[in-house]
Amino acid sequence: MTSVIPSPELIASFTDIVGPDNALTGAGEVAPYLAESRGLYRGTTPLVLKPGSVDEVSRILRIATDTRTAIVPQGGNTGHVAGGVPREDKADVVLSLERLNRIRDIDPVGNVIVADAGCILADIQKAADGVDRLFPLSLGSEGSARIGGNLSTNAGGAAVLAYGNMRQLCLGLEVVLPTGEVWDGLRRLKKDNTGYDLRDLFIGAEGTLGVITGAVLKLFPKPRGHQVAFAGLASVEDALELFDRASSLCGPALTGFELMPRLGIEFTTRHIPGVRDPMGSVHPWYALIDISTSDSAESADRMVQSVLEAGIGDGLVENAVVARSEAQSKALWHMRESMSPAQKPEGGSIKHDVSVPVSSIPAFMAEADAAVLKAMPGARICAFGHMGDGNIHYNISQPVGADTRAFLDRWREMNAIVHAVVLKYDGSISAEHGIGQLKRDELAAIRSPIEIELMRRIKHAFDPAGIMNPDKVLRAE
Amino acid sequence: MTSVIPSPELIASFTDIVGPDNALTGAGEVAPYLAESRGLYRGTTPLVLKPGSVDEVSRILRIATDTRTAIVPQGGNTGHVAGGVPREDKADVVLSLERLNRIRDIDPVGNVIVADAGCILADIQKAADGVDRLFPLSLGSEGSARIGGNLSTNAGGAAVLAYGNMRQLCLGLEVVLPTGEVWDGLRRLKKDNTGYDLRDLFIGAEGTLGVITGAVLKLFPKPRGHQVAFAGLASVEDALELFDRASSLCGPALTGFELMPRLGIEFTTRHIPGVRDPMGSVHPWYALIDISTSDSAESADRMVQSVLEAGIGDGLVENAVVARSEAQSKALWHMRESMSPAQKPEGGSIKHDVSVPVSSIPAFMAEADAAVLKAMPGARICAFGHMGDGNIHYNISQPVGADTRAFLDRWREMNAIVHAVVLKYDGSISAEHGIGQLKRDELAAIRSPIEIELMRRIKHAFDPAGIMNPDKVLRAE
Repeated sequence: MTSVIPSPELIASFTDIVGPDNALTGAGEVAPYLAESRGLYRGTTPLVLKPGSVDEVSRILRIATDTRTAIVPQGGNTGHVAGGVPREDKADVVLSLERLNRIRDIDPVGNVIVADAGCILADIQKAADGVDRLFPLSLGSEGSARIGGNLSTNAGGAAVLAYGNMRQLCLGLEVVLPTGEVWDGLRRLKKDNTGYDLRDLFIGAEGTLGVITGAVLKLFPKPRGHQVAFAGLASVEDALELFDRASSLCGPALTGFELMPRLGIEFTTRHIPGVRDPMGSVHPWYALIDISTSDSAESADRMVQSVLEAGIGDGLVENAVVARSEAQSKALWHMRESMSPAQKPEGGSIKHDVSVPVSSIPAFMAEADAAVLKAMPGARICAFGHMGDGNIHYNISQPVGADTRAFLDRWREMNAIVHAVVLKYDGSISAEHGIGQLKRDELAAIRSPIEIELMRRIKHAFDPAGIMNPDKVLRAE
Repeated sequence: MTSVIPSPELIASFTDIVGPDNALTGAGEVAPYLAESRGLYRGTTPLVLKPGSVDEVSRILRIATDTRTAIVPQGGNTGHVAGGVPREDKADVVLSLERLNRIRDIDPVGNVIVADAGCILADIQKAADGVDRLFPLSLGSEGSARIGGNLSTNAGGAAVLAYGNMRQLCLGLEVVLPTGEVWDGLRRLKKDNTGYDLRDLFIGAEGTLGVITGAVLKLFPKPRGHQVAFAGLASVEDALELFDRASSLCGPALTGFELMPRLGIEFTTRHIPGVRDPMGSVHPWYALIDISTSDSAESADRMVQSVLEAGIGDGLVENAVVARSEAQSKALWHMRESMSPAQKPEGGSIKHDVSVPVSSIPAFMAEADAAVLKAMPGARICAFGHMGDGNIHYNISQPVGADTRAFLDRWREMNAIVHAVVLKYDGSISAEHGIGQLKRDELAAIRSPIEIELMRRIKHAFDPAGIMNPDKVLRAE
C-alpha cells in the first residue's frame, strides 16, 4: 500500500460524486472522524466523504481501487480497537455511512427489517418496537452506534445469551466490493444452502473486505414477561453453578446472566448519580439474572422464583432481590452498564475484552488475578461481564495513589499477562470488540501461520489493490 | 483439473498411508460409495481410502495436491444433491471419514461435545443424552449421517426453528486443507471476534475447500416439558396465521411447526405401516406443532392449550388433537417424517427443497401449484415441510397411471417451473440439501456474476490445485 496524499484532482473526483457539502477537508470538520472515545489512537485524513447512496459508494470505491487510495469505512465511531478510524500519517480517506440511514422495509409477519448500514442501532430498535417486535441487539453505545459497524464488528452486548450476536441476527447483506461491484445478498431466508457463506465472511471483517451498505435483520416477538433479579454470591465458582441451574431451569428464557465484583458495586455507587446498592448486605460477587418469557408475565415470575429458590436451597445465593417494576429492572441494568464509566474517576484503567469456555471462568479469573497482582501489587481488578457467554471485561484500575501515566504505560505488559492466561484456557483475546489496529500484531503472534495465511488469501481475493481499511485486522503487505 | 486414472504407484502411495485394509479397489467393495439413495447420479472411482487419523488425512491431501488427484470426502453418504459421491468417469478418489468416529470430549457444564467428523449423528445425540444434555440436530437419516457431512452441508432438519441449523450448532472446527496443513479451529467459545470467520466458510462448502476432521458442537439443557399437537386447517393462509400466533405465544419454546397437505396424510396412512390418521375429520391442510419448555411439563401443556385456544377462537383451527404421551408425540412425528418415503409406492416423484420468506409461503404455494398443474395436469403435489423456517419440500408425485420414466424425464422442466416461482419470491433453490452436482449449473445461472466470481476466488485461494471435490458447487475450471 502506498500512502501518498491524494492529489487535488483526485479529491475533486471524489467530491464530484458526493457533492461539496458531503466532502469534508477542514481540520475542524474532519476532527470528529479521527479518534475513538478511549483516545488510544488518533488518525489523520485529507478527506471525509459522506455518500448518499449505494451507487455513490460504488463509484468512490471504483476510483479508490484504480488510484490505490486507502478507504476507511466508518459508522458511529463507537469502536474500541481503532478499526474505524484512519491511520496516523497515511492519508486514508474516511467513508462515513451516516447519510445512508433509511429503513427500507419492515415486515412484522416475516419478522425482518431491511435497513441502510448507516441506521443508528436505537432507531432500528424503535422501528421494531413500532410494529410490536423486538430487535434484541443491545449495547451501551446504541444511541450512536450504526448497524454497519455493528455488523462489521459482529457486535455482542447484553442479549447475546438468548439471541446471539450480530452474526445470528442478520439474514442478508448488501456489500459494495473494493472494485465497486455491488453484491446483493439481501436475502430474507432462514434456510439457504446455496454455496459459500459470503455473508458471514463480511460480518466481523471490520470493513477490510468491502463496505456493508444494507442489511436484512431478524425481528422477534416481544416477550410478555420480564423479570430481573440481583443475587449476592460468595465466589465465581458459585456464580458458575448458579448459571448452570438458571440455564437448565430457564433455557432460552434466560436472557442475561451478568457477573459483577464487589469493587464494581462500590465504584458505581460512588461515582454514578442515582446508582444505589440494592442490598443491605455486602458480598464478594453479584449476578444480575434477566429472564424474558413469551407466554405471560406470571411465567417470568415463576422462573425467577425457581432459580432463586434453587440457588438459596443449594447455598449458592447469599442474598437476593427481585425487581418489583420495569423501573427497578432498568436501575439494576444501569448499575451493570455503569461498571466501565464508573472506573474513570478512579484513575487509569487497562481493559481486556476476553472470553474463555464458560466452565473455565473460575479458574481463569483466579489465575489472572494472581498474575496481575504479582506484577502490580495494589492493582484494583474490576472484572465483570457476560458470564453466560464466557465473556469477561477484565478491567484493571490503577492502584490508589499511583501515577496514571506510568500506570497506563504498562498497558501492553498487563495485556500480555492477562492474555497468557486467556490462551492457556483456549480463550479469545477479543470476545466482542474485534481486532482493529489495537490487537492486530498480537493476533498474528498467537494464531497459527496457516490461519493468518488463509485470512491473507481471502483479503487478497476480495481486495486485490489493498485499499479497504488497510492495516486493520491484518498488517498491510 | 485433469482426470487421469491414478497410476499403480500413486495408488500404492495412498495405500501405504492407510494400510491395505483401508484402501478399497474392488468393484464390489467400492460400490456403496458411488451412488446416493435417490439414484440420480452414479459415480466411478479407482480407490476408496478410509484414513484412521487426522495425520493420515493430511498426508493423503498433500500427495493429492502434488499429483493433482481429485479427492471426494464422504460421510454417511445420505446426501441428495450428488455432493458426496465421485463424478462419473473422472477417477476421483473417495476419502471416507467413517473410521474417524471418536468422541474426543464431552463437557456438560460447558455445554460442548468435541467429536471426530466421522461420528454418526445419532451417536452424538446419544452421548449428549448420557450427560443429561440435548444435541438438537434431528434428521430422518440421523442413524447413518455423519457430522462431517452435516457440517459440510449445513444440515437443517426438524429442530431448526428453535435451535438453528448446523451452522448455529457449531462452535469450532478442525479442517485439513487441500495442501495438507491442518487448521486447528477447535474453539469452545460463544464469543470470539478475532478475524475472518473461517469456520462458517467451511460449513456448507460441501467439502470443496478442505476436509472437516473434527468439530466442537453445542449442547443444550434437556427440556422438562414436551408437547405435540396436530391441527386440521382450511388453508396455507390459516397455517401462516396460526404459526404467527404460536411463535408469539411460545417464542423459542416453539420447537417445530410443520405443514402437511391432505394428500400426504393419505399417502402415509396408505403405505407406511402403523401410521393412522389421528383425526376423524378431513382437512385440506395440517400443522404439527411441537413445543418444548425448560421449566416444567405443565408449562408445555399450558402453551399448547393457549395456542390451540387462540387458533380455534380465531377460526384458524378446524380440529385438533394433542398427544397424550411421548409415544403419541413420536407417532405424529413419524407420520411427518414418512411423507417422503410414502411417495415412493405412488410412482415417480420430482423433488424440490426450496425456501421463501415465511410470509410469502401462501402466495408461493398458490402460484407454484397453478404453474405445475398447467404444465402437467393431474400432477399430485405433495408439498410439506418446515413452515416456520420458510422451507418447503415441494414434491410432485406422478399423475395416476402415468409412465414413470416419461414423468421423471421432465425433472429439469418441472424444477425450472417451480424455481421460477421461488425466485420471484426471492427464495432459495436449496434450503437445506446444498448444491452438489444436481443444482450447480442452475446456481451459476441464477446468481449474479460477481457472487459466483467471489466464490471462485475463495475456491482458488483455498484449493489452488483444484483437487477438493471438483465440479461440486462450482464447475471445475
